[in-house]
Amino acid sequence: MSIAADISVYPALRVAVVGAGYWGPNLARNFAMSTEWELVAICDLDLERAQNLARKTGNPAVVGSLDELLADYDIDAVAIATPAHTHHKIAMQAITAGKHVVVEKPLADNSAHGTQMVQSAANAGTILMADHTYCYTPAVLKIRELLAAGELGELLYIDSTRINLGLVQPDVDVFWDLAPHDLSILDFVIPGGLNTRTVTALGSDPLHAGKSCVGYLSMELESGILAHINVNWLSPTKIRQMVIGGSKKTLVWDDLNPQQRLTVFDRGVDLDRQKMIRSDAEDRKGATISYRLGDTWSPALSEFEPLGLMISEFAASIRGSHRPPTDGLSALRVLKVLEAANDSLAQRSHGEQTNNSQTLVMENQR
Amino acid sequence: MSIAADISVYPALRVAVVGAGYWGPNLARNFAMSTEWELVAICDLDLERAQNLARKTGNPAVVGSLDELLADYDIDAVAIATPAHTHHKIAMQAITAGKHVVVEKPLADNSAHGTQMVQSAANAGTILMADHTYCYTPAVLKIRELLAAGELGELLYIDSTRINLGLVQPDVDVFWDLAPHDLSILDFVIPGGLNTRTVTALGSDPLHAGKSCVGYLSMELESGILAHINVNWLSPTKIRQMVIGGSKKTLVWDDLNPQQRLTVFDRGVDLDRQKMIRSDAEDRKGATISYRLGDTWSPALSEFEPLGLMISEFAASIRGSHRPPTDGLSALRVLKVLEAANDSLAQRSHGEQTNNSQTLVMENQR
Amino acid sequence: MSIAADISVYPALRVAVVGAGYWGPNLARNFAMSTEWELVAICDLDLERAQNLARKTGNPAVVGSLDELLADYDIDAVAIATPAHTHHKIAMQAITAGKHVVVEKPLADNSAHGTQMVQSAANAGTILMADHTYCYTPAVLKIRELLAAGELGELLYIDSTRINLGLVQPDVDVFWDLAPHDLSILDFVIPGGLNTRTVTALGSDPLHAGKSCVGYLSMELESGILAHINVNWLSPTKIRQMVIGGSKKTLVWDDLNPQQRLTVFDRGVDLDRQKMIRSDAEDRKGATISYRLGDTWSPALSEFEPLGLMISEFAASIRGSHRPPTDGLSALRVLKVLEAANDSLAQRSHGEQTNNSQTLVMENQR
Amino acid sequence: MSIAADISVYPALRVAVVGAGYWGPNLARNFAMSTEWELVAICDLDLERAQNLARKTGNPAVVGSLDELLADYDIDAVAIATPAHTHHKIAMQAITAGKHVVVEKPLADNSAHGTQMVQSAANAGTILMADHTYCYTPAVLKIRELLAAGELGELLYIDSTRINLGLVQPDVDVFWDLAPHDLSILDFVIPGGLNTRTVTALGSDPLHAGKSCVGYLSMELESGILAHINVNWLSPTKIRQMVIGGSKKTLVWDDLNPQQRLTVFDRGVDLDRQKMIRSDAEDRKGATISYRLGDTWSPALSEFEPLGLMISEFAASIRGSHRPPTDGLSALRVLKVLEAANDSLAQRSHGEQTNNSQTLVMENQR
Repeated sequence: MSIAADISVYPALRVAVVGAGYWGPNLARNFAMSTEWELVAICDLDLERAQNLARKTGNPAVVGSLDELLADYDIDAVAIATPAHTHHKIAMQAITAGKHVVVEKPLADNSAHGTQMVQSAANAGTILMADHTYCYTPAVLKIRELLAAGELGELLYIDSTRINLGLVQPDVDVFWDLAPHDLSILDFVIPGGLNTRTVTALGSDPLHAGKSCVGYLSMELESGILAHINVNWLSPTKIRQMVIGGSKKTLVWDDLNPQQRLTVFDRGVDLDRQKMIRSDAEDRKGATISYRLGDTWSPALSEFEPLGLMISEFAASIRGSHRPPTDGLSALRVLKVLEAANDSLAQRSHGEQTNNSQTLVMENQR
Repeated sequence: MSIAADISVYPALRVAVVGAGYWGPNLARNFAMSTEWELVAICDLDLERAQNLARKTGNPAVVGSLDELLADYDIDAVAIATPAHTHHKIAMQAITAGKHVVVEKPLADNSAHGTQMVQSAANAGTILMADHTYCYTPAVLKIRELLAAGELGELLYIDSTRINLGLVQPDVDVFWDLAPHDLSILDFVIPGGLNTRTVTALGSDPLHAGKSCVGYLSMELESGILAHINVNWLSPTKIRQMVIGGSKKTLVWDDLNPQQRLTVFDRGVDLDRQKMIRSDAEDRKGATISYRLGDTWSPALSEFEPLGLMISEFAASIRGSHRPPTDGLSALRVLKVLEAANDSLAQRSHGEQTNNSQTLVMENQR
Repeated sequence: MSIAADISVYPALRVAVVGAGYWGPNLARNFAMSTEWELVAICDLDLERAQNLARKTGNPAVVGSLDELLADYDIDAVAIATPAHTHHKIAMQAITAGKHVVVEKPLADNSAHGTQMVQSAANAGTILMADHTYCYTPAVLKIRELLAAGELGELLYIDSTRINLGLVQPDVDVFWDLAPHDLSILDFVIPGGLNTRTVTALGSDPLHAGKSCVGYLSMELESGILAHINVNWLSPTKIRQMVIGGSKKTLVWDDLNPQQRLTVFDRGVDLDRQKMIRSDAEDRKGATISYRLGDTWSPALSEFEPLGLMISEFAASIRGSHRPPTDGLSALRVLKVLEAANDSLAQRSHGEQTNNSQTLVMENQR
Repeated sequence: MSIAADISVYPALRVAVVGAGYWGPNLARNFAMSTEWELVAICDLDLERAQNLARKTGNPAVVGSLDELLADYDIDAVAIATPAHTHHKIAMQAITAGKHVVVEKPLADNSAHGTQMVQSAANAGTILMADHTYCYTPAVLKIRELLAAGELGELLYIDSTRINLGLVQPDVDVFWDLAPHDLSILDFVIPGGLNTRTVTALGSDPLHAGKSCVGYLSMELESGILAHINVNWLSPTKIRQMVIGGSKKTLVWDDLNPQQRLTVFDRGVDLDRQKMIRSDAEDRKGATISYRLGDTWSPALSEFEPLGLMISEFAASIRGSHRPPTDGLSALRVLKVLEAANDSLAQRSHGEQTNNSQTLVMENQR
């Protein structure tokens, strides 16, 4: 599998982390611990915050502005962990300066911005990668491996639940807050990526907070099957579960069950194909389905820090071994579904008077 | 609570069970055991099947036709457990003959039929009741009691999951097979019943069986909140779970956990109302939400046979103490949502070319 | 595996059930449904109870005394489901009359009685079998199969928990009430049966009920490993769990988890054997143990009525295909451990003054 | 409750941490973060390890010997986190120098050493405290509170399970490795502390590692009830569960279930006391027990770092507000049970030839 990075003989790559707030420290810590990277600088408008972070990560330089960082420091790459609406501006400046860029999720605040970032990086010949951290967890890597190997057979349905008691975010609704995780994971594990025909979103704001706090996102995938995501900030029980149903086996990922995170059910459902072939359309509707109850299997998962693997993949991509598994295009597919969900919600809201459609038919995204 | 039936001093009511197939034996057995009822006859076209059932239920008469039953036997009531598409005809004949009628779910195969049954029973002054058995389980009765007492505060959202590996039914899709349970329960527990503004259904037929095998049903209730139901015949894991989120508390019903079927989380989410009052619309969007982690409580549930309570309620209704909690009107509300789901699915299917709406705006159902 | 019984061409064997109380109806129902058996009579001092049971099981004869049954009815076998203290007398009479006998657990009220029954049956050339029903469940049969195949490697420890809120029995303590299940299962699944070196019992009677309501039973098996059983009538949580730890794999049987009753952990613990060989005794104590985290596997289990298989095995034994897997000797081994537990408890109670041993060294039981 | 420490107006107490290995960093970090403490020095023979720790904890002094620490630094207290067999020597030296001392568990490697430490501290008028960290977790504090308030009624039994796949320790067996947690918790939560009449230990060494890897420890408490602890290094499933059964309610603590760590079952078992009073001893044995199935309740638990509370309690004790809840005497009671377990194991091992007792009758420990 292409994910595993080789420990290389190359000299360490030089990186700066921009943003020392919530996520930046995690990135900085991992860069500091890696032999493939040298953490050169922490950049933040808040110099004290940057200084505090620098102290815990081997005392890289502390820089107060992006201009200064790009002008004065010899770096190969920039890791951006600032608020989402600033990603585009910072990334574009770094790309223009010829730097490789990894961006905290979401890639950008809209797909136009994201598209521009992808194109600029392509033009500049630099790597643009999204830090979709979940994709580098042992469980998700195993899911990707199983799907790539066709272990589940044809996919039949996907159902993901990500609910908990969460603070209402000031700037985004529950879709933009939580669904990027599910969407980036789907893009990562589905062979060929997340390509949707239609997107339907249903949101609810029972607290009158001015934004959806409960959300259901349904996607008809190119293969015709339905993928469904439930996100919810108001649930007292925390659930992180994804079910991927296949014609041969079905996989359940329960991220909150450390003793059995992944379970593969060797239980298949079959139409009586013999009958179907012989019969006309009417009969086919009556075709019986049989099911088979086989063993259940839970693969052992190794343990490592996902962020460590992510930055290792970033390094490998820069050195040309392969495109990053969560590259800019992948992140763009996620953004486009989120925008389609926005549109679906807006049309529905309009539709309460006019009864128009709330389903957004997606253009081909590739 | 009005559900509990008095053991009465009345003479036993006389009942016949029509249909000795899958569900009829359960009804017959409970009528036979009840002191409020006398099981007079089993009626089935298949006389041998009827005879077998009669032997196990105290040897009531065995009758081969409904005409004969209604003409020759002195009965107060008829319990119908035949295929759904025959409910209307049998019930109408029994009502016309002045009999009280209880019908296995669904009440009828469409709402026009159901409406006619309701109206005829009203005109004839007979009781028409639906055997929504789940509503008479200890867990659902307790949920109804908690909601009636306002224990959860304002309802914020409802989410129900009913999935398992199931045989594809020859005559109905997964919505009509499984969702009547959820819908009848919702109608039973929500104060005022299940009244929907809009119904959106998304179905998927990944096996090409000619009908939905995976379904999502979303309802905007009159109160504005979203109720969501997930039904699925293709899931290797069996889940029977309903979450009812309230402004004060949230309830989780896990029907497959006999040791803790109902859990009430005293965890609330609050907008900073003070801030909201002072602020204009823009600020309100930024209002912070705080949450409170309180105790969890799981009420003890008594144990009894739901069907025994159901037929006791049927008797009490006939004797005039109160309308049955799952009367014809209740069953009709369930039918109308299922029909709206049908329409939503049909429009969606059409809409894939024309991009029309798949949401059905419901007329006021009361 | 020898458990599976052949559907034979023999004429049905003729059986009478003695005792129509709690367990007799289950036996009678299964005999009545079996094509290998003909249920000839129900025998009970309480003729009305016997009559009621006969009505539900195809109307066999109803007999009020054992003498009459053995004298007047042409039967091959007797199934005894009377109180434990009557097992010996009834079984001896039936064996003397040349009948094959199956006895509800426990085989007898003490091992002297049990031994006499075993010897008499051997002398008479009749089959004596114990109805250790649990042994014929799909889960236990699978455990036996896995252990017979050496799937777990060498056994390292066994731990069984059988606790719930239960009524204090008038005639037996918690050991005699619940532990026969665990003991008969262990005898059934351990290759070679349950052979113990020492038995230690610790009981507690915190309610002053005059008998142990909480019990711990530890057995040193012939192989040197420890098997431990916890039984408890006072636990508000119900647990039915057995762990069998092996050098290669470990098996967990959770009988209350229908979705994953059996789980096999491919997780081994290894001493650094290399080091052990080279080192002297002192060093050996410091030998490090490494552990391996492998996959988890849960075998599919078929579904059938255990009692149906038990009576089928009884028939096969009578017809000479093989000894019953839960024969009199097996039941005797269970009795002897229970008696050793009694002795351990008695010595302990004495020992509080005199400080004598509470561990009973078992004579060789074979 | 006496556990909650007041935020005081006293100047910070001055402390040194001795031992920078596994546990020392946790202590140092908490002292460094506390406003009640000033971390003055880290003392370790391995100066580099001490230096590394000092860098992360505000750069206290780094000292290579205890003599130097006690001679040259102005400190109030010493926190000892060195190997168990060195606790006694280090603590005695610190106590002699007039320092307050907190010691990582176990207090000492044997009870004679522990007794000497307790007496010396008493003579010197200094505080001697054991770092029984578990006792300062929200769950254990809540259990203590519930038991102190008599919420469970009379205690009936206690059962604790602490099993997982663990490395065999070079210096201690599974009892000394794991049971100190259970014992210190029991001493903390049982009103009056852990006072045992007899201790019975059964150990097993199926891997021939030279020490018990599977252990069962039963204690008859002064109240006459049984407390049972199961520890196991060879279990592929990890369990951390304690059940405390009471006459009114029963408590289950499942430390691996973050969503419902504590559950209180309002389920009681009652002997028919009326009958017992009237009846003689024989009848009493037949007294029936009834049980009641009430609600289940799971209290909300606050979240904080237990070690932070522990050092806060240490400070409060020094300032004279109250004795530390896990003082030297408490730790000594734990040591004495572990030694009694040793004796029980030794006698058992001897007893296999001579059939002597393996139960150790405890002297009164207070």
